[in-house]
Amino acid sequence: MTDVAIVGGGVIGLSIALRCAKRGLGVAVHDPAPGSGASTVAAGMLAPVTEAHYGEEALTSLALASLALWPAFAAELGLGDAYTEHGTLLVALDHGDRAELDRQHGFYARLGLASHRLTGGEARALEPLLSTRVRGGVHAPGDHQADPRRLHAALLDACRAAGVAFVPAAVTDPSTLDADRVVVCTGARDLLGLPVRPVHGQVLRLRGPAELRLTVRGIVGGRSVYVVPRPDGEVVVGASSAERGFDTAPRAGDAYELLRDALDVLPELAEYELREVRAGLRPGTPDNAPILGRTADPRVIAATGHYRNGVLLAPVTAELITALVVTGEEPSALQPFHPRRFQ
Amino acid sequence: MTDVAIVGGGVIGLSIALRCAKRGLGVAVHDPAPGSGASTVAAGMLAPVTEAHYGEEALTSLALASLALWPAFAAELGLGDAYTEHGTLLVALDHGDRAELDRQHGFYARLGLASHRLTGGEARALEPLLSTRVRGGVHAPGDHQADPRRLHAALLDACRAAGVAFVPAAVTDPSTLDADRVVVCTGARDLLGLPVRPVHGQVLRLRGPAELRLTVRGIVGGRSVYVVPRPDGEVVVGASSAERGFDTAPRAGDAYELLRDALDVLPELAEYELREVRAGLRPGTPDNAPILGRTADPRVIAATGHYRNGVLLAPVTAELITALVVTGEEPSALQPFHPRRFQ
Repeated sequence: MTDVAIVGGGVIGLSIALRCAKRGLGVAVHDPAPGSGASTVAAGMLAPVTEAHYGEEALTSLALASLALWPAFAAELGLGDAYTEHGTLLVALDHGDRAELDRQHGFYARLGLASHRLTGGEARALEPLLSTRVRGGVHAPGDHQADPRRLHAALLDACRAAGVAFVPAAVTDPSTLDADRVVVCTGARDLLGLPVRPVHGQVLRLRGPAELRLTVRGIVGGRSVYVVPRPDGEVVVGASSAERGFDTAPRAGDAYELLRDALDVLPELAEYELREVRAGLRPGTPDNAPILGRTADPRVIAATGHYRNGVLLAPVTAELITALVVTGEEPSALQPFHPRRFQ
Repeated sequence: MTDVAIVGGGVIGLSIALRCAKRGLGVAVHDPAPGSGASTVAAGMLAPVTEAHYGEEALTSLALASLALWPAFAAELGLGDAYTEHGTLLVALDHGDRAELDRQHGFYARLGLASHRLTGGEARALEPLLSTRVRGGVHAPGDHQADPRRLHAALLDACRAAGVAFVPAAVTDPSTLDADRVVVCTGARDLLGLPVRPVHGQVLRLRGPAELRLTVRGIVGGRSVYVVPRPDGEVVVGASSAERGFDTAPRAGDAYELLRDALDVLPELAEYELREVRAGLRPGTPDNAPILGRTADPRVIAATGHYRNGVLLAPVTAELITALVVTGEEPSALQPFHPRRFQ
């Protein structure tokens, strides 16, 4: 009998599988196609600051805790330049956008998060490709990024090296699995009756001369767009957000809006190659926070609902869920994210 | 020894190969990857009227002659609904666009081409998905379309059935081929020292509920966009035009402009799936007309430079080039398109 059965071989499931296997547990990951969900569509921003929202302070704390684990996590996996600490620049275009920028910066400051208000000229000094129309910025030097596809591939390799077994079959009822503990990490495809809903997110992958210096997030006419550059010249532009059930078809209108807003902020991107247009399903929850902890069946543990932050939250999720699996005790840090909060 | 060697297995090459084979000649098509060029990127408009331009009247005459051959060509190939006679609607958005629409309609009228000036309301009656911002239209009831991918596949089948041989190798010097006649149809990749240049054209392939009634061409802020619906729900949006050598990478900026202009004309397209973004190389010539006829080496015949009209001109090109091959005499209709016009 397996010690731990993990249902779902995305970034969350594999991170937990690896941590459990390194603790000496026998682990099996059940997934007909590991990495076919949101993990390899995501942009991979590690951005506790520029993803911080009012009323979500517990989530921001968890995100900061996870970011602190990221350097060791990246080193353990040998990610190399698939993990980069080049910071993030949030910029505003028009007058109303600048007001929103000031509002967000004020919120970050109240939470004590590292961020610096910049003029348009100061922002362009940090990132010379910014449009001359940029009227101001906020630098978040601690918001980083990782390439989710290289991360997922590295996790697969590390899991195999650590003796994790892979079962290429779909699971519909986790309670039937023959294991001491079952951890369910199926993202937007809920198997446990939890309030997780699929949130359609579309991203574009461009390729250019690797001249962008850092992640740029734009507030453009009240909308949000992000542009995440990789050292290899890949540039991820995202992301739309819509609720359309389990439909993952990318939409022409979403592509149009992403391109329009990204080119407004970084006009040079027009000359970049458009390599890929894809959509994935974020696992959304009622409070935008993940669902982590024991379910009504105490043998079955949920680790899902990571919404916009699955890549960022992977290491802390792995630590906390592994502690629960190994000790049988729920770490206090899991308290705000427990499944029972929705009862 | 082969009677006819055809270099290039795109729509032009295969159309000639099929016609020659049906005349009883032994035919070999040389192409390492038939259909890997512009043939399967093209939108497939068969539009002598809305493609008519001042100073290109000989080309318009050739295009009209080819359009007249299209119904029999489609029937011979069993194209079914891959060839549709649903007409084309040219529409204008702003004041300046309407002036351009009137100018174009006046030109069509002077050439005696079938076209009708419509109000915005009349245009929307023909195509209810048109934006309410459309200020006027021109209906060209004889401008049709064919699906170039299904056309190319049907040509391959028909050539094989007619005994055409396929040689999957690249040809660099056509004069070395062992055949009575050599016909060179290599599109933008000139092998004969002709003044053919690659013109980068990007198209998007969308998919929706097959509700568009006819091909829509828009004049939007002075730019041109076309939207070609297929009976199976595919919608082709095109096309950018730029000279970038042999680079076929699609550009983010081109995709943005195509989507912007297409959505301006047909807002419903925003909800359609974006399936594909690709670019191909049109074989451009100094006068935008094809190059058809004997080269300095009288054994070698050019059939290239079809620029924006390869699919439309395929049947007439096949008829005229086959007549030249069979009789050894150049049909008088080839006169305006002869390679020697550039000497």
